[in-house]
Amino acid sequence: MAHLLSASCPLNISCSKTTPKSLKQSSSSFPTSLTLRTSIQPFKTLSLNKNNTKKLFSVRATTLQQPGTKPGSTSSQTSGEQPRPTRVMVIGGDGYCGWATSLHLSNKNYEVAIVDNLVRRHFDDQLGLDSLTPISSIHDRIRRWRSLTQKDINLYIGDVCDFEFLSEAFTSFKPDAVVHFGEQRSAPYSMIDRSRALYTQQNNVLGTLNVLFAIKEFSEDCHLVKLGTMGEYGTPNIDIEEGYITITHNGRTDTLPYPKQASSFYHLSKVHDSNNIAFTCKAWGIRATDLNQGVVYGVRTDETEMHEELYNRFDYDGIFGTALNRFCVQAAVGHPLTVYGKGGQTRGYLDIRDTVQCVELAISNPAKRGEFRVFNQFTEQFSVNQLASLVTKAGEKLGIEVQTISVPNPRVEAEEHYYNAKHTKLIELGLEPHLLSDSLLDSLLNFAVQFKDRVDTKQIMPSVSWRKIGAKPKTVSA
Amino acid sequence: MAHLLSASCPLNISCSKTTPKSLKQSSSSFPTSLTLRTSIQPFKTLSLNKNNTKKLFSVRATTLQQPGTKPGSTSSQTSGEQPRPTRVMVIGGDGYCGWATSLHLSNKNYEVAIVDNLVRRHFDDQLGLDSLTPISSIHDRIRRWRSLTQKDINLYIGDVCDFEFLSEAFTSFKPDAVVHFGEQRSAPYSMIDRSRALYTQQNNVLGTLNVLFAIKEFSEDCHLVKLGTMGEYGTPNIDIEEGYITITHNGRTDTLPYPKQASSFYHLSKVHDSNNIAFTCKAWGIRATDLNQGVVYGVRTDETEMHEELYNRFDYDGIFGTALNRFCVQAAVGHPLTVYGKGGQTRGYLDIRDTVQCVELAISNPAKRGEFRVFNQFTEQFSVNQLASLVTKAGEKLGIEVQTISVPNPRVEAEEHYYNAKHTKLIELGLEPHLLSDSLLDSLLNFAVQFKDRVDTKQIMPSVSWRKIGAKPKTVSA
Repeated sequence: MAHLLSASCPLNISCSKTTPKSLKQSSSSFPTSLTLRTSIQPFKTLSLNKNNTKKLFSVRATTLQQPGTKPGSTSSQTSGEQPRPTRVMVIGGDGYCGWATSLHLSNKNYEVAIVDNLVRRHFDDQLGLDSLTPISSIHDRIRRWRSLTQKDINLYIGDVCDFEFLSEAFTSFKPDAVVHFGEQRSAPYSMIDRSRALYTQQNNVLGTLNVLFAIKEFSEDCHLVKLGTMGEYGTPNIDIEEGYITITHNGRTDTLPYPKQASSFYHLSKVHDSNNIAFTCKAWGIRATDLNQGVVYGVRTDETEMHEELYNRFDYDGIFGTALNRFCVQAAVGHPLTVYGKGGQTRGYLDIRDTVQCVELAISNPAKRGEFRVFNQFTEQFSVNQLASLVTKAGEKLGIEVQTISVPNPRVEAEEHYYNAKHTKLIELGLEPHLLSDSLLDSLLNFAVQFKDRVDTKQIMPSVSWRKIGAKPKTVSA
Repeated sequence: MAHLLSASCPLNISCSKTTPKSLKQSSSSFPTSLTLRTSIQPFKTLSLNKNNTKKLFSVRATTLQQPGTKPGSTSSQTSGEQPRPTRVMVIGGDGYCGWATSLHLSNKNYEVAIVDNLVRRHFDDQLGLDSLTPISSIHDRIRRWRSLTQKDINLYIGDVCDFEFLSEAFTSFKPDAVVHFGEQRSAPYSMIDRSRALYTQQNNVLGTLNVLFAIKEFSEDCHLVKLGTMGEYGTPNIDIEEGYITITHNGRTDTLPYPKQASSFYHLSKVHDSNNIAFTCKAWGIRATDLNQGVVYGVRTDETEMHEELYNRFDYDGIFGTALNRFCVQAAVGHPLTVYGKGGQTRGYLDIRDTVQCVELAISNPAKRGEFRVFNQFTEQFSVNQLASLVTKAGEKLGIEVQTISVPNPRVEAEEHYYNAKHTKLIELGLEPHLLSDSLLDSLLNFAVQFKDRVDTKQIMPSVSWRKIGAKPKTVSA
């Protein structure tokens, strides 16, 4: 009973000034990521599988085999056998990058299983946020995908922090590769209050440790493709390399992990993950690729635009919205673009169509056993001021007058700095970048204009301060 | 009720082959550090304070003031007032380094509060281990110290992962400095099984985050003195600097955090801590000193040898015993010294009498606001083979014949490597090292001989494998 009761209040988030659910601030009540279980079936995984009548919500169809056009097929089959598709578990497959990736891999004939606790949707409910685009339930998304393509996506609703659940997902799906997007992925969210800071590190770090143990225990040849972030590096005054740097010091030389300088509890959680994964590659022979991704923009991919029930989420709010997406929404509704501070903050950016390409390239070119491989996953660098200028010019072409204002920077970060990050390894594997100049109008600004009636301008301004974060739970008013 | 029930089974450790307490492996049942609460007073801190009749187990006496000989006095008093002693909270003050440090600081007229959940004693109970030296309860230790010196040590029994408890400790004690030893500190313990691996990272990382939030919330000028480990650096092929390294790369130069290559989930937890603390120094202006400590040896300090009830613990087992302490016990009982693998593993070492000196030097020379200062805290480097040779020679002087055997290395580590670590900053502050050549006989080997009848030889051999760690809970037989 202790187990059930504590599982019933997994997130210590109070969402109303009038009725805050105050925190039990003890070691036993750290917020943990959400495990979705019904009262009907409290201890069983919800699996969408039409062939298993013992489980609820069964919708899995037979995967359509399309021999001959299979990036998803493995090469390790014995002769005469039908090659079996590579099985990819996408943890966090209901999220922004995860959903686009799941569809892309399914479309390329990988056998895909989404593992997700749907906590991203829960965050929106709790914080009063919503995607610009209307998004369907994960169940409707998968059903629609199947009806359009005859391709199935397996679904495991549950939490990777719950090792019992994760074990069941691993032993039943038997992945060849795991793509791990399943983390709390917002820097501002991690800086709301103590509770969210600890939740972010607990959920991300322990969830990833569980994934590593699951690979070791159940599928040790499985390739882990882990989403890191370019933010792990911070903004050093020297060139940023891909994961490692060769240092000559006092006459001796070694190639060492590139120094990290993360700037939020979220970014730090990714650094912790990278260090943990690197150790397990060395100690256990795990094969892993750490994708240090830049800021992702855009919403359309070949797959999501097939049907409105496949639409991806598009976040423009101050918590989950990435810079460029937010600027396009601001332009569409006539809100000034909100540049934080001086606007010299420079980062790597990429189109979501390149995110899905990069993940597939990593899967189809796996790391060796024991290798901890790091790719910097972005295509172009921009400063915030450059982005604002590009959006302003694109707006002019649509007849939209765009203004830009500087708002006090809620973050603690350099606003003018050197930035030159290498990003050649994915290009060498075959990445063909979509460039922002081409995407800005067709995949971003027009899209924002199309949905501008859904914009809630209250969500746009930054609401979280890096310096003012406190120990007390922060409540959200209506 | 959920809170109480889950607090009742905080550690998922099964200790018997016949009656394992099997794990509830869900997100809500991660092992969390132990919060000691009685059934009489389940939500109140146990505080040893004789002046507060509302609290149980009151034994706090008035601190004896000894003006004129006070390293513990602050310099920020207004003229005419009696200088008040610097108030130091020692988290983990019942442990090996923590107890010696607490007594040393109290003896130097600092006002000391020990914060400890006593989980280190619990680990011994669960794993069937025991200190070579008989150690008294924390209550008897503090009472004995008071009766001998008329100096009081405040005691807060509770868990820093419990923010409600930590808040009470901070607001009532009002520390000027916090020395944070309160972490699971054994690499082998962290490699026993999945449950202990996750416990170690959760307890250490989230506990430290709570300490940082407590400082920000209640005592923002407070100096954090955090125990890190030399193991954070690993064994790079270049000189190890103190925390930072200046790198010139492609014609540009920056001083960056020294790259870390930790080699156990425990060592990784310390790396995560260092990264988290560095961020809060920058973002919040926390003042912090990270003491990257080497392997500590010895048991006697000026204070612990005053009375047998003040004796420090002395661990020689395969889980908590440090290399040199273990070798001395092995020599004393005629057990061959167990060198792991080739024995070329080189590390920094220091006498526990230098640990307490270093901590006091850090406290009395605090970091500036916003500064993240790193000291490498050791005095000499030795390879394991060198240690074995030194113990063999010391044994000869006592008429003990010492043999050395190589056992399969349970760890994943380089057994022959370059190692040259800087350690000048504490020397510059005034550290006067005790050297091993002087300590080996008087503080180590003679001590081991004195207590050799208490040695349990079953505890000596390594029992934990870095490669064989599994997801399933590991049980301990009788």
